[in-house]
Order: sequence, then structure tokens, then C-alpha cells
Amino acid sequence: MTVRSWGVRDLVQGCLRAGVPAVGLWRDPVAEAGLAAAARWVRDAGLRVSSYCRGGFLTGADRAGALADNRRAIDEAAELGAACLVMVVGGLGADDRDLPGARARVSDALAELAPYAAERGVRLGLEPLHPMFCADRAVLSTLGQALDIADALPGTGVGVVVDAYHVWWDPQVDQQIRRAGDRIASFQTCDWTLPLPADVLLGRGMPGDGHVDLRALRRGVDAAGYTGDIEVEIFNADIWAADPDEVVATIVRRHVQHVL
Amino acid sequence: MTVRSWGVRDLVQGCLRAGVPAVGLWRDPVAEAGLAAAARWVRDAGLRVSSYCRGGFLTGADRAGALADNRRAIDEAAELGAACLVMVVGGLGADDRDLPGARARVSDALAELAPYAAERGVRLGLEPLHPMFCADRAVLSTLGQALDIADALPGTGVGVVVDAYHVWWDPQVDQQIRRAGDRIASFQTCDWTLPLPADVLLGRGMPGDGHVDLRALRRGVDAAGYTGDIEVEIFNADIWAADPDEVVATIVRRHVQHVL
Repeated sequence: MTVRSWGVRDLVQGCLRAGVPAVGLWRDPVAEAGLAAAARWVRDAGLRVSSYCRGGFLTGADRAGALADNRRAIDEAAELGAACLVMVVGGLGADDRDLPGARARVSDALAELAPYAAERGVRLGLEPLHPMFCADRAVLSTLGQALDIADALPGTGVGVVVDAYHVWWDPQVDQQIRRAGDRIASFQTCDWTLPLPADVLLGRGMPGDGHVDLRALRRGVDAAGYTGDIEVEIFNADIWAADPDEVVATIVRRHVQHVL
Repeated sequence: MTVRSWGVRDLVQGCLRAGVPAVGLWRDPVAEAGLAAAARWVRDAGLRVSSYCRGGFLTGADRAGALADNRRAIDEAAELGAACLVMVVGGLGADDRDLPGARARVSDALAELAPYAAERGVRLGLEPLHPMFCADRAVLSTLGQALDIADALPGTGVGVVVDAYHVWWDPQVDQQIRRAGDRIASFQTCDWTLPLPADVLLGRGMPGDGHVDLRALRRGVDAAGYTGDIEVEIFNADIWAADPDEVVATIVRRHVQHVL
């Protein structure tokens, strides 16, 4: 999603050119490429699929529809051999003020999806989103809350996503990363820059341009035992408009400088 | 600050007209009116000063200057007879990524200010701000964190501010309000509306227009033993441009409907 102008085939070739060994895929571009073709391209290139984005949106009125769509996402993640299916759980409806109710619907739906995913060898990654997205995108707001949900599910297959942008502010982030241990299904970086939102070229989000101590977070997930790939995930119109090969080159440089 | 076009004298008269028995004051308008005059007006009108905004900004390089300014704010709060001095603790410097360091500076400065405030009968109210303000305004992001800081200070004089806008998303909000008990120095309401930022007239912020279950929070602070005033604090350009008497009338109606 960081190099959004590329389709899956371009993305695979761009990763190969830059020596990037793993890539996170999103459902829309995969659907456009065709699932079987996308799976074949990444496999033939020897790339790991570090995550598949995304399932979730479990808080709405159409529970059956949401579950069916998530089962399809799980099937796709299995075919792609993705390390996890990232779950963005959904927000509140237009006139909804019942946050505990929405959170309960998330737990309930996950209890139904977790065995389906486990049977197919797909790990669900619960992604807490920054609290500023609580109303519209994810009522899952902290790593601690994600771990509470994961702990309450049967089995140990459900993991959590540590996205620096969403969790960096949390006074409990270090202790919850330690607690997460082998539940960490993905670690993602970018940066928090001011003002919000920024619109300068390469302003918001590129690792090293903001206030997040990415190296400290990386050391934390290391110490917790995470050995998976580290993803750089940046949503930024200016980065999307830039030359994708240059964006990847910058990311590789910044990743070494600020994360490794 | 909700009826920002009013000076202190207008504000006092507006509260009297609407039957509002208490008001939160801010330093700039008080300075404009003159501290002694402002204190006399509210006293003569029989109004309670529910809070004084604000002290804080303790994370910058000029520690001595910040402490001196906070001592002045404490003196002013004492003269106004304010129920508390609201503390917005400050964010990170321009190139600063050391969030734990900034948080330590806050605790350190509060340890110096707390006895000064206690000697003058002024209660400090630590206000956790929404995590989206962590980098630029307040490294104090949750009620739990505010209580941890307050617990670590000598004496029991330091309180916390429960502002619905800042804490509504927190999965721990109910338990932390219970834990806060008589540390609750102020309870403030407004609402979280979408999209962010909204610019429709009276769109963002008026209680009842958004996703916050204000009544549930009010019941929580009630159960925790809070018997102080409830403030409605809305920052909104459209509300600021509207007729202040109408704004106050709307607030009184919404407060009864959505908070009481």
C-alpha cells in the first residue's frame, strides 16, 4: 500500500530490484491481478508474503455478510501463504454510542472466525488502531485490549499486529509488547509527523521524519521473540505520487537507519 | 472557552442569565479583565469557578521558566477560588523522539509544583489528552497514566481531569474512573463527531451530536464519588461564531438530555 500505484506484478518486480525479501499484500490489488496469478508471482519470485490486508469490519449490522467476507479473506490468505491476515475490526455505526457493545460484537465474531482460520493454517492478526480511529475504523484501540481479546479466544492461534503509528503513544506499549511475546503476528513501521494531516512531499510517515522511536519499538519486539518480517506501511498521497522505485529505495535506507 | 467571544464580565452575566451556577475560566481572558476584577465579578455573582485553565507545558527546555509560569497560574487559581488548576503537560520538541524522557520531566516538574499548590489550597488536575495530541500537546495520554503519576507524588492533593473527549475511547476508562475516586478534580463533556475535523455549524462537539456515551461516563464519575461541577468544554469555530446566549441555552438543554 506504500507504493500504491504498482499492481501486484510491478510490486513483485520492484521488490526483487530493491532486494526486499517480503511484501504485504492487499485484497483489492490481489483481486485485480487474480488470486492464483498473484500467488504464483510471489511464489516464483521467492518473496515471503509478510501479511495480507485485511479482514475485519465486524461491528456492523450485517454479521453474516461480514463473517462470509472474512472467511473468503482467510481462504485468500491461505492461498497466498501469508504470515497473517490483518484484522481491522470496524468502528461504530452512524448513531451508535455503544462502544462496549461494538467491542463485544468483535470478540463474538472472532470466536467464530478463529477456528476457521486455524483449520486453514492462517494466523489472524488483531490490529489495534490509533484511538483517533475508534469511532470510524476500529474499536480495538490498544495492544493490551487486543491481547485481552486474543487471550479469551480458544486456542493460541490469534495474534496481534504492532503498528508503530497506532501504538507509539501508549504508556503501556513496552509492557504489552513483552506480554504479547509470540502472539506478535506482524510489526509495522512508519512515523508520526506534525502537523496532522501533513501534505508536504514525503512529509508524513516516512521512518525517521517524526516523533516515533522506531528502534526502541523494534528492540522491544525483538526481545519479545518476534522473528518475522518488518513491514513499512505508509499512507501518504505525496508518497503515492512519487516514483515507486525511489520510494522503495528511500524506505530501505530509512529502515536501516531508523529501525535496524 | 466554549463561548470564546465573551470576556469574563460578559461570561459572568451570561451564566447568570442562563442559570449556570459555575464556570471554568482561562488565563488569557482573566489577564485581559485583570485578575482582581475577574475574581470580584465571579464572587459577587455567586458563581463557582469550576476550573482554571491552564498550567502545564512542562516538557520543554526552559524548565525554570515553565515552573515559574506554573507558580503564577497556581497563585491566580488561588485568588479565583478555582476548584482546580487544569494541567496540560506538554508534548515533544521538534526533533524529539524520547517520549519516556518527556514523561519523566513531567513527573519531575509536578513533584516540584505539587507542594507549592497544596500550600495555597489549589488542587492540580492532571488532564490526559487524546493520544492524537501526544506529540504536540500532552505526553499524558490516559487516565491510568495520570493516576500512576498522581499516586507517585507525595501527599494526595493532585487530582485528574476526566474529559470525555479525551478518554471515551479507552478500554480501561470505567476501571480507571473507579480507581480515580476522589482524585477526580473535574469532569468535562463534549462529543466526538465525524468526520475529523468537521466544519458544519454546531457539528463537532455539542453533547449528543456524536459517539460518546456521556451519560455512562457521568454515572461512572458519580459512582466514583465525584460531586463537583460538570463542565461543557467545546472547541469549535462554528460554535464560537454563533450567538453565545444561544450556545449556552443549547448546552443547558443538551446537558440535561445527554449527561444528566
